[in-house]
Amino acid sequence: MSHQVAALFKTISSGVYVVGAAHGQQRNAFTASWVMQASFNPLMLSLSINPGNTSYRLIKAARAFAVSVLAREQMDLARHFGTQSGREHDKLAGQAWRAGITGAPILSEALSYFDCRLCFTRRAGDHVLVVGRVIDGAIFRSEAAPMTYASTGDLDGSGALYPSKF
Amino acid sequence: MSHQVAALFKTISSGVYVVGAAHGQQRNAFTASWVMQASFNPLMLSLSINPGNTSYRLIKAARAFAVSVLAREQMDLARHFGTQSGREHDKLAGQAWRAGITGAPILSEALSYFDCRLCFTRRAGDHVLVVGRVIDGAIFRSEAAPMTYASTGDLDGSGALYPSKF
Repeated sequence: MSHQVAALFKTISSGVYVVGAAHGQQRNAFTASWVMQASFNPLMLSLSINPGNTSYRLIKAARAFAVSVLAREQMDLARHFGTQSGREHDKLAGQAWRAGITGAPILSEALSYFDCRLCFTRRAGDHVLVVGRVIDGAIFRSEAAPMTYASTGDLDGSGALYPSKF
Repeated sequence: MSHQVAALFKTISSGVYVVGAAHGQQRNAFTASWVMQASFNPLMLSLSINPGNTSYRLIKAARAFAVSVLAREQMDLARHFGTQSGREHDKLAGQAWRAGITGAPILSEALSYFDCRLCFTRRAGDHVLVVGRVIDGAIFRSEAAPMTYASTGDLDGSGALYPSKF
């Protein structure tokens, strides 16, 4: 019965991203969809992430993160970085990635990427807004179309996280 | 030459929205695309808006705003609320709208809407993050598809706002 509110929130369009962070010998990356531009000058991105996520600690420690934009057909990557825990497992092992200028991991097969220095974080309900200045980025695959969150169905199981009504 | 960075930021998927606010006898609404969900519990939305916008003052004064989601074919509404100044002109005059629970204006012909109480604002570069708790909302037109920002081309003239490189 949470269907109606869940369906309402699906009318907000978003893409699907892999957010990466690294600090010292530790690194992690996870699938996210709450990502938007926040400023033109300077260029800034805002994400909203679960503070229980392993990557959140790394983002705070390194004061940096990278956002890799997934292409329409990369559901395997969305699933890989979305479903496995980064606590005991290096989700980047076996994946093609490189470190950005900030040191944050970028997926080499992504459609595009943004390399960001953390500006600030701010709690928002059960998530945390993470706002960063974009210091580098590029399109790797100009022929590809971005994956839309709407196309993933209930891949992330978020349908169950919405209340049934207001 | 700002083309490359502008194209990069277009790989971030977003929708097109009309954000409305009202305080006393004043009301305004404007086209926005930097909108994302920020929290499940409570349900929250985050926008990033230009603080020079007339509506920003109304959002702060009323501590509320509404987000109307535009459907794919509603480019006329995107243009109407995107290009006219709200300073001297009531952009809602002649449009079908109603006040939400918060009093903020909602477009009656939108695909869906979210009625929000302001939680906090926070400066982010040349914009301001506006974060609100969603207290009401509904889908008006379940058969419609949301307008994507990518489909609007350079309707908002934002291409010129990106630097040529990092």
